[in-house]
Amino acid sequence: MEKTIIIEKTKTKLRSPILVEGFPGLGMVGRIATRYLIKQLGAKKLADLYSPHFPYYVLVNKKGSVRLLRGEFYFWKNESGENDLLFLTGDYQAQTIEGQYEVASRILDFAEQSGVRMIITIGGYRKETEEDPKVVAVSGDPELLNRALNAAAIASPAGNPIVGTAGLLLGLAKFREIDALCLLGETRGYLRDPNSAKSILHVLQRILNIKVDLEGLEEEIKKSDEVVEKMREIEERRETYAQKLRRMEEERITYIS
Amino acid sequence: MEKTIIIEKTKTKLRSPILVEGFPGLGMVGRIATRYLIKQLGAKKLADLYSPHFPYYVLVNKKGSVRLLRGEFYFWKNESGENDLLFLTGDYQAQTIEGQYEVASRILDFAEQSGVRMIITIGGYRKETEEDPKVVAVSGDPELLNRALNAAAIASPAGNPIVGTAGLLLGLAKFREIDALCLLGETRGYLRDPNSAKSILHVLQRILNIKVDLEGLEEEIKKSDEVVEKMREIEERRETYAQKLRRMEEERITYIS
Amino acid sequence: MEKTIIIEKTKTKLRSPILVEGFPGLGMVGRIATRYLIKQLGAKKLADLYSPHFPYYVLVNKKGSVRLLRGEFYFWKNESGENDLLFLTGDYQAQTIEGQYEVASRILDFAEQSGVRMIITIGGYRKETEEDPKVVAVSGDPELLNRALNAAAIASPAGNPIVGTAGLLLGLAKFREIDALCLLGETRGYLRDPNSAKSILHVLQRILNIKVDLEGLEEEIKKSDEVVEKMREIEERRETYAQKLRRMEEERITYIS
Amino acid sequence: MEKTIIIEKTKTKLRSPILVEGFPGLGMVGRIATRYLIKQLGAKKLADLYSPHFPYYVLVNKKGSVRLLRGEFYFWKNESGENDLLFLTGDYQAQTIEGQYEVASRILDFAEQSGVRMIITIGGYRKETEEDPKVVAVSGDPELLNRALNAAAIASPAGNPIVGTAGLLLGLAKFREIDALCLLGETRGYLRDPNSAKSILHVLQRILNIKVDLEGLEEEIKKSDEVVEKMREIEERRETYAQKLRRMEEERITYIS
Repeated sequence: MEKTIIIEKTKTKLRSPILVEGFPGLGMVGRIATRYLIKQLGAKKLADLYSPHFPYYVLVNKKGSVRLLRGEFYFWKNESGENDLLFLTGDYQAQTIEGQYEVASRILDFAEQSGVRMIITIGGYRKETEEDPKVVAVSGDPELLNRALNAAAIASPAGNPIVGTAGLLLGLAKFREIDALCLLGETRGYLRDPNSAKSILHVLQRILNIKVDLEGLEEEIKKSDEVVEKMREIEERRETYAQKLRRMEEERITYIS
Repeated sequence: MEKTIIIEKTKTKLRSPILVEGFPGLGMVGRIATRYLIKQLGAKKLADLYSPHFPYYVLVNKKGSVRLLRGEFYFWKNESGENDLLFLTGDYQAQTIEGQYEVASRILDFAEQSGVRMIITIGGYRKETEEDPKVVAVSGDPELLNRALNAAAIASPAGNPIVGTAGLLLGLAKFREIDALCLLGETRGYLRDPNSAKSILHVLQRILNIKVDLEGLEEEIKKSDEVVEKMREIEERRETYAQKLRRMEEERITYIS
Repeated sequence: MEKTIIIEKTKTKLRSPILVEGFPGLGMVGRIATRYLIKQLGAKKLADLYSPHFPYYVLVNKKGSVRLLRGEFYFWKNESGENDLLFLTGDYQAQTIEGQYEVASRILDFAEQSGVRMIITIGGYRKETEEDPKVVAVSGDPELLNRALNAAAIASPAGNPIVGTAGLLLGLAKFREIDALCLLGETRGYLRDPNSAKSILHVLQRILNIKVDLEGLEEEIKKSDEVVEKMREIEERRETYAQKLRRMEEERITYIS
Repeated sequence: MEKTIIIEKTKTKLRSPILVEGFPGLGMVGRIATRYLIKQLGAKKLADLYSPHFPYYVLVNKKGSVRLLRGEFYFWKNESGENDLLFLTGDYQAQTIEGQYEVASRILDFAEQSGVRMIITIGGYRKETEEDPKVVAVSGDPELLNRALNAAAIASPAGNPIVGTAGLLLGLAKFREIDALCLLGETRGYLRDPNSAKSILHVLQRILNIKVDLEGLEEEIKKSDEVVEKMREIEERRETYAQKLRRMEEERITYIS
């Protein structure tokens, strides 16, 4: 395998599908949100994406078996709306610049071939915040951006970079005349952040006009809060110690100078 | 997108165009000078350059929209002279060696196809200086070099490397029999340096025989000077502190030895 | 040479060959085990693999001659069983992500062309252990996994990554419908570990139904144990010293605070 | 330019040419020796080699002009012997693994096409030595190796790696049935070492049966010795200082423990 490839696992006909992408990234927000939707909606596997730009190892899974790192496409037939959904998540992002562009291009090839005319990419937005994380929306399409703002997202400040697959899909979609929207959940980013993913899902439900029970995220949020609390305690003890050291250094300097 | 591509936004016929290139680099000198010229002359967008060797993120712009990192070609029809101008600036340089060579080759393909027979690349030249920054000129064409020296540029010392697109265009132009000149504005290089860009523009005006009002750069220069002043103060305080520490260490060593 | 190539040194017809791969890696377990088998069975050279993704130097060998870094295929005709054996070991692994995928793909091309329907890859499994190293088995084929578990291997926990050629061959074999098993010998990993290789060989003999005298490994194991013992002594002295330093720091802090 | 290219500057017919290669490397031994030979013999430029794997900058040369980094082939018609000589030196080595293999392959293409049946590569061999640097010889061809040993070179110990173009040419020449010899001059390696280059030239003259005045290297050797002497003084002062610090630390620890 010397190029990124997509292997279809089943054939299906989708009605005006919208692609929702959430690869791992800041706070794992995109991956958590996308995987939760796949599980809650009971979406079915459509295809696997493999790439020589993913890290060169394989993962052992629960059944004792083994597999290459991959991206996964899932589909969901929307009985009550006019857009079926296509989901894309994965284990890892491509590890080189050129690999990032190649993977994003292959994803768009597959999306086009599946009839996708709209893409929503999901990621994290770094922010130190104590409050409920907000959702930042970015789109080159004013109508689509408005749809996100009406769904309680906020507009992004200018100059803000969107890194990785979520960003490149947005930028490259324009060349194929596919509408694209990016939703970024505020997050501190250094730990899994299911709370930020939940904010994303609130906004996404309204944009897609679907209804998903978000209760299942609560347990993960609780666990994650406990980890954050523990990290904070450790940080505080470390800071106390560091302060003592600094005070000591200052006294020595005062004494000498 | 797996190769560098150039997408034309309009068609136009240029008379013996000269390409002026200023990608980001040392002190942002090339980019500031080129963008200022584009704005003052009211040059029009000709084409966009995209590359899988640029960093893999997209930028959110002022209108809330989003775009890939890119290079931009602009053109200006010179009513009173015999050379129309083509400008090239961009967000970023290619991030790998191979990418740098590929991007420079695509730029030259496009320049050739647009009828360009002369290229002027702009960059920064690292120098600790308090005075007005000088402009260093380099060219394989003695006549072109003289034109720059007559326009108040100075010759470069031997052995001086010119890094990135400004250098590669110069080196690769020779294979296509395109004349090329590089103008480097002296700069400390670690901060945006509009003052160095102004020196470049003084020289460039005389070479190109055009007239541009440089007043608009003054405000940016004033702001930049304030930043430099603040940095200097911080540096001085840090140095005082470091001296005390060194003195302390020396006393301890003297005491022991 | 701009692509990975395999140069056959002889032609032979193999009966249902099984490929046993052991490139250098954690504790050199795979390489030690594979080379020992090659030597004990008197396997013959079949082919050399060269790659522009190996490090760019050559090695001087015992005869004063010189050679590129390479992989080596050996074959052994199994007179008393139904599967001939093919061995692959080498000097180094590919140094880039893309190189790893390319080398693994070329190996599988060659394996397919040689009639291989089963691959066993060997590597190390990082574990701090005082006991006899266990052998961890991973396979996507339940029958093959069982064969390993019946040969005294243990199952791998989920989530465990298998890095490099041993992993990629396992992951990529699936696309070619080749059965694949990975055996990982427990090892601390920072030194050559012939003891872990011996554990691998115990398991491998039973899986392959062959009989090899492992006595020859004992001397290397003894030497390796001595090195470990020396390292431990150094580590202990270093720890004593570090404790004194920590105590000293604590006293100073207590004094100040 | 996206591939390594060689541009011929003149056409000539060479009689059984031997290629002598000396790219920059350890102590610059290969480059100094090769350039000295080119100059003393009055060899003429044959071709330039350019590569997108060299660093991405251009050099300003003495005439105020500018050029890409390159390799240079020179030829010398040997009036009194049966082998004309071809020389190759350059500014830099390729910067990536894949680039190193590509450049070496292009060099061999050009050598073959020029009728070369023998290659001698030159480099440095790291050794802390006060004496006259010896010359280490490596070759896969016993006859050629003997020729070097008879010319006062010594054999290389096994396991010694030869890094970069000097090594790869040696390793890859075998596939084209070109005889190859590598001569490595002992050097500390961290400074230009014309003395080691001189040792190489002594050996090379006898192998090639040519006579070159080496007097011209003496001045450079004298300058280089002065630099080494200065470096040693600085090193000694630093060591004295470091010893005092270590003693101080030990006293503090003794005091506390």
